[in-house]
Amino acid sequence: MASTYGKNIRITIFGQSHGPAIGVTMEGLPPGLAVDTDALRAFMARRAPGGSLSTSRKEADEVEFVSGLYRERTCGVPLTALIRNTNIRPQDYENLRLIPRPGHADFTGHVKYAGFEDLSGGGHFSGRLTAPLCVAGALCMQLLEKEKITIGAHIASIGQVCDRMFDPVAVNVNNFTELKKRALPVLDEQQGIKMCAAVEQARAGGNSLGGVIECAAVGLPAGLGDPMMDGLESRISALAFAVPAVKGVEFGSGFAGSALWGSQNNDAFYVQDGHIRTRTNNHGGILGGISSGMPLVFRAAVKPTPSIAHEQESVDLQSMQNVKLCVKGRHDPCIVPRAVPVIEAVAAVALYDAWLEQKKYR
Amino acid sequence: MASTYGKNIRITIFGQSHGPAIGVTMEGLPPGLAVDTDALRAFMARRAPGGSLSTSRKEADEVEFVSGLYRERTCGVPLTALIRNTNIRPQDYENLRLIPRPGHADFTGHVKYAGFEDLSGGGHFSGRLTAPLCVAGALCMQLLEKEKITIGAHIASIGQVCDRMFDPVAVNVNNFTELKKRALPVLDEQQGIKMCAAVEQARAGGNSLGGVIECAAVGLPAGLGDPMMDGLESRISALAFAVPAVKGVEFGSGFAGSALWGSQNNDAFYVQDGHIRTRTNNHGGILGGISSGMPLVFRAAVKPTPSIAHEQESVDLQSMQNVKLCVKGRHDPCIVPRAVPVIEAVAAVALYDAWLEQKKYR
Amino acid sequence: MASTYGKNIRITIFGQSHGPAIGVTMEGLPPGLAVDTDALRAFMARRAPGGSLSTSRKEADEVEFVSGLYRERTCGVPLTALIRNTNIRPQDYENLRLIPRPGHADFTGHVKYAGFEDLSGGGHFSGRLTAPLCVAGALCMQLLEKEKITIGAHIASIGQVCDRMFDPVAVNVNNFTELKKRALPVLDEQQGIKMCAAVEQARAGGNSLGGVIECAAVGLPAGLGDPMMDGLESRISALAFAVPAVKGVEFGSGFAGSALWGSQNNDAFYVQDGHIRTRTNNHGGILGGISSGMPLVFRAAVKPTPSIAHEQESVDLQSMQNVKLCVKGRHDPCIVPRAVPVIEAVAAVALYDAWLEQKKYR
Amino acid sequence: MASTYGKNIRITIFGQSHGPAIGVTMEGLPPGLAVDTDALRAFMARRAPGGSLSTSRKEADEVEFVSGLYRERTCGVPLTALIRNTNIRPQDYENLRLIPRPGHADFTGHVKYAGFEDLSGGGHFSGRLTAPLCVAGALCMQLLEKEKITIGAHIASIGQVCDRMFDPVAVNVNNFTELKKRALPVLDEQQGIKMCAAVEQARAGGNSLGGVIECAAVGLPAGLGDPMMDGLESRISALAFAVPAVKGVEFGSGFAGSALWGSQNNDAFYVQDGHIRTRTNNHGGILGGISSGMPLVFRAAVKPTPSIAHEQESVDLQSMQNVKLCVKGRHDPCIVPRAVPVIEAVAAVALYDAWLEQKKYR
Repeated sequence: MASTYGKNIRITIFGQSHGPAIGVTMEGLPPGLAVDTDALRAFMARRAPGGSLSTSRKEADEVEFVSGLYRERTCGVPLTALIRNTNIRPQDYENLRLIPRPGHADFTGHVKYAGFEDLSGGGHFSGRLTAPLCVAGALCMQLLEKEKITIGAHIASIGQVCDRMFDPVAVNVNNFTELKKRALPVLDEQQGIKMCAAVEQARAGGNSLGGVIECAAVGLPAGLGDPMMDGLESRISALAFAVPAVKGVEFGSGFAGSALWGSQNNDAFYVQDGHIRTRTNNHGGILGGISSGMPLVFRAAVKPTPSIAHEQESVDLQSMQNVKLCVKGRHDPCIVPRAVPVIEAVAAVALYDAWLEQKKYR
Repeated sequence: MASTYGKNIRITIFGQSHGPAIGVTMEGLPPGLAVDTDALRAFMARRAPGGSLSTSRKEADEVEFVSGLYRERTCGVPLTALIRNTNIRPQDYENLRLIPRPGHADFTGHVKYAGFEDLSGGGHFSGRLTAPLCVAGALCMQLLEKEKITIGAHIASIGQVCDRMFDPVAVNVNNFTELKKRALPVLDEQQGIKMCAAVEQARAGGNSLGGVIECAAVGLPAGLGDPMMDGLESRISALAFAVPAVKGVEFGSGFAGSALWGSQNNDAFYVQDGHIRTRTNNHGGILGGISSGMPLVFRAAVKPTPSIAHEQESVDLQSMQNVKLCVKGRHDPCIVPRAVPVIEAVAAVALYDAWLEQKKYR
Repeated sequence: MASTYGKNIRITIFGQSHGPAIGVTMEGLPPGLAVDTDALRAFMARRAPGGSLSTSRKEADEVEFVSGLYRERTCGVPLTALIRNTNIRPQDYENLRLIPRPGHADFTGHVKYAGFEDLSGGGHFSGRLTAPLCVAGALCMQLLEKEKITIGAHIASIGQVCDRMFDPVAVNVNNFTELKKRALPVLDEQQGIKMCAAVEQARAGGNSLGGVIECAAVGLPAGLGDPMMDGLESRISALAFAVPAVKGVEFGSGFAGSALWGSQNNDAFYVQDGHIRTRTNNHGGILGGISSGMPLVFRAAVKPTPSIAHEQESVDLQSMQNVKLCVKGRHDPCIVPRAVPVIEAVAAVALYDAWLEQKKYR
Repeated sequence: MASTYGKNIRITIFGQSHGPAIGVTMEGLPPGLAVDTDALRAFMARRAPGGSLSTSRKEADEVEFVSGLYRERTCGVPLTALIRNTNIRPQDYENLRLIPRPGHADFTGHVKYAGFEDLSGGGHFSGRLTAPLCVAGALCMQLLEKEKITIGAHIASIGQVCDRMFDPVAVNVNNFTELKKRALPVLDEQQGIKMCAAVEQARAGGNSLGGVIECAAVGLPAGLGDPMMDGLESRISALAFAVPAVKGVEFGSGFAGSALWGSQNNDAFYVQDGHIRTRTNNHGGILGGISSGMPLVFRAAVKPTPSIAHEQESVDLQSMQNVKLCVKGRHDPCIVPRAVPVIEAVAAVALYDAWLEQKKYR
């Protein structure tokens, strides 16, 4: 059907990029949360366009809560947050209705919605729809932080420039604090400089770049998640792949781990200060779909932004002729930096959903 | 919660590895399907142990349909398939209750279920639970084949030995037919021989190997799937990660694609014989969560089987002391070959669910 | 959890009576529906306050579609309709926070939401939340009418004054057209006059009245609905009881039928003009949860409005002392007339959901 | 779709009356419940045929748990209970395939399942499917009793013979204990004798009777349930209407209450021993969908068993001619007594689901 996620906390995202508004409804929020609007605004700002690496479309992205709050606290009933679309230029997309942009959902949306689709700026498929996801993520993060669970992410790579990876055993909240202070969320600032250069090169060439985002959650107790289809990997990936441009997700040692011996990939248990830990963390904090108490670590692959200034081959859907296409409009040469908080939001929503689940059995 | 998947077709998997039976209930099957039991048996046989690369636990895996059939056809109400567990040796696992095996769900299951867990042979977390998933997959595959949609998979790698990949533009049903004839489902038989050697080496060393499975679906019309959380990537990954040992999933160019330029990764549209196709298929047949009509291609990373004969470090959960552990029991040195039909089953269930979805709007 | 309904069409209702806005998100709408805003406005007007029998709170109830439309047609993605709350007087409810009104959700909401509840004007429990339900119902009704399915309802009783009932075999669209023309939707206008008198008497006495609404759907094909929990009775009642003040739902001969002999209550089948019909319709158009093709008929019991001007006994939640309570504010002496389109909306949403379900198997 | 209920505890019922087996899968059960098999057997016995008022079909109804138990306790994963069908006589139903029985789902099932339906003995629509519902109910009841929540029901009427009703303010666990001791669960044994006479009269005349069942739950804390579609009325009615033959459900004063003045129907709050109670209980223990702490009281109307020995009018579906039908087979002249534990099971499953829901927010 559509745009709903979660079993205990449920989020429904609505809106089109160039429609009146986008937003999210969250059901299952506990009553009594005093929404930290400064933290929310700071979180949203990390996703917002405006950095030197991003699109020139500026959106204030002011969040209006039309439901679910009372005296600035959650009151237990569905919460709806609205973000008005203010900087709308649908005319930029008029001529695209008949000529689908390569790498976008124009063609598939056209087929699915039988010609009635709104694809201005990507419509409901737009990366802009990650703004309400970030609202949901920010609220879940505030709830998780009350439980001492913290989430952070960094750019693992842009194009062929790689950051170093989180230490999967030792990653901690200090890493996250540090990352949030930086202009570009990378562990190795030298690599960050190279990433910026690569993005500038892409922009200059009318081209684009993708990358990988690595995300970690620390402070998770053991025992969150469920077997099989409600395992943490299933829960997180189902939401991560909802983020436009994500084409791969892996946990712990992931694809690389599949090339190891069992004796290399297994993580030995040991006791430390009365807690059970593992010496390595190839399992990425998840065994059998359930958290082990070690840091949860996953990576999401983000494809290069499909909007590029090059002339591309496409098709006129009306005449069914091959044509050349030049895409106008305002676009990011690389959305990876802005996607970092989005991936954190994914983790926050998925983990808070799993957190509520286990509360039923305590 | 647990072990249910799907919105239009819904499957619920139950059972423990060493309990009385395992099985699956499927809701939403159309009435009138004459179940092809030979095809089902052949499909199950591909997953069953018994090949030279697998465990010595033999299970007949006879499927009994206790509900949902009438005169050998589906009658529209919930279908339940049972597989009795016949070769049960729970005593092999008695001493494991207090000493969790590295890489298994013993520890996380223990925490989650508060000491009441059944972890004999992995319990509900066992790879054995993929047998009922294969029943569901086989039935969905029979339904998809009526729509000219076919699914196939091969071993993309075992350890460090790689098969060549599907041609994502040209992969077709002949590839699948060929693969199913082979002892080991690989495109390059020379590489298959090397894989066998690698597995034998692992077995001899009391060790294990993982690998990658590549799966494709051909004949899909454009327009299946939904935006955001019900996109085909979300639908497939949520079920793929339910398969024990899967730690990564990628679509199309996936992680590798994230290192390309947009101009390289975008797939140009063109018209061929009145159909819209793309010249390359880095998008893996999915744009905006919706099928493009090109082959759907994804890969799943399978970690090395955690059961190895090596002495490993673990913890006594009662005394909370570090201990050494030697795991007995019958285990596969490499489950990748047996997981190939399981991944096909994942694709079949997810795609048939999406197929039913779009029928509502035709 | 909360405020979501449906499997194929899914509606999520949000908002509080005296918050910024109320609204509904609908997922699963087919693309291409040209929303008939005149019909929508006319439908909403039937629920809106303002008639001689209703509250003096006036709300324009202007519906803004912030998502889901493109060029005035549904575009296939989630549709969100907002209604701003304009005539807000939360101060009327301030003193009620500690003294729950008998018959309202004040006390139960207070316990559930632990003191964080918004109960101004009933908050999320308010009858005002039926306005977005009517938006959803109106759209579903437009979709059903394309399939020649029509829904209508009348006031079966107010207090002890009864209208005559629909003829369950012969009820048809002309009955509905007639009802919509009348100031009060009753079949017997003489009884309508008595109902008005009874309501006036209640208002004069600072008292209130309830009643029963009878609803029918005609033009339904046989075969809609599902066995057991997805039967039409379950689908309709689950949504009907979501309407504040509904305390009973019955189908066909309902409670009265339970006192008959089987030979009286069974409806004989016969063939008429090549169609199978029943001579009587005690089954209310539903057998085994599935539509029979005969008119679907059900009744909903609406309790008397709990807001009355009498002094009532209650409790001070802080001091835990018995107190006397006089409720101020603007209230309907009888909400039954305004609830008529709401019950029609319930039927429309439930039946359109079932309609989509069966399309999967055609 | 089909035969699934619940959000926190989820039950899926499968099987056909004359297929190999019927059963239920329950997801979301907490680990560690030692199933009281004696209590389960006693509960099932109340539903089983064999009393003087019921069918001559005898079924042992032995429950086999094939999944979800370990060492006789729930282990946290899906629990599946099977009941083999042993006394199968499908030949009794062969000639019914083309001539639908009035009052049964034969015709609607035939249309829905396009001729592939299994309607032997009602197939999946059979009252026999309430046996697995009772298994689920019995387990939920055991879990609720740990929380001091108890459920009981009595026959409120059979045909035109009425029992007295529960005192909605004072009903308590002693009433339930007393009821379970009696051959017929009625409060007034004199009326029970008249009911038996009425049923015998029906049997003698080849006819049948329906009735009303009244059910109460005591010990419920205030605060269970949710607003709107997840209110307790919606939750309970959705499952109650899944029980074959139920055609009406009302809570508290229900239909009769709709004829009262607000001043009569409102229930005054007062403090007793530090607890908030209401002096009357017309609200049936539910306000705004949420429990008030007063006894929860509802009634379900059960239609007369449609199987009667009279000659009836029907239609030959093949020739489309009117025909006369005489139904053979073994049938209850009145299923109301056997439906009493089924309605208790409905309440138990619905309330335990709501109980788990609120635990998430404690």
